[in-house]
Amino acid sequence: MNYIADDIVCDTPGGRLEGADAYRGGFLGPFVQILTGAQMIAAFGDDQTALVMYDTQTVPVKSAPGAECVTVTDGKITYSRFVFDRAPFEAARNAPT
Amino acid sequence: MNYIADDIVCDTPGGRLEGADAYRGGFLGPFVQILTGAQMIAAFGDDQTALVMYDTQTVPVKSAPGAECVTVTDGKITYSRFVFDRAPFEAARNAPT
Repeated sequence: MNYIADDIVCDTPGGRLEGADAYRGGFLGPFVQILTGAQMIAAFGDDQTALVMYDTQTVPVKSAPGAECVTVTDGKITYSRFVFDRAPFEAARNAPT
Repeated sequence: MNYIADDIVCDTPGGRLEGADAYRGGFLGPFVQILTGAQMIAAFGDDQTALVMYDTQTVPVKSAPGAECVTVTDGKITYSRFVFDRAPFEAARNAPT
């Protein structure tokens, strides 16, 4: 979380998160708990923007690729646009146990 | 379709498409029919890879951002990894009319 600005704004498939606490509690923390592996697919950027795509393996979903476009200001991520497919997570949640 | 290799492989949220016909018929064609607008969020690349993120507006889903990582060989796209959130499209499809 060292690179996350206190006032980060993150647009996720589920909606906007505002502030580092929301980013950590509503997004990063829960995801890290189910994350079992990750591989970078591509990463590019310039002075103020980074664009990455990666594949992840999670407990409920075997392959869950995602992409993030982040804006960096004064060395901190101030804005993040995050794209991933929620459908397989919803299917896993609704699957009979 | 000038830049699409005949043997393109495209990994989409719904699975793998193989060949230009599958790419056009199973993915690009149906999407273009519902597309009403698009804005590039970020685009980077090098000699053989392009990574882009964009937002789109579609008939069923107002904001449908996506990301693509494509591999270019001999001037043609031979591989595409495509990430977007299917959940709002599924919700729109299942909504009462």
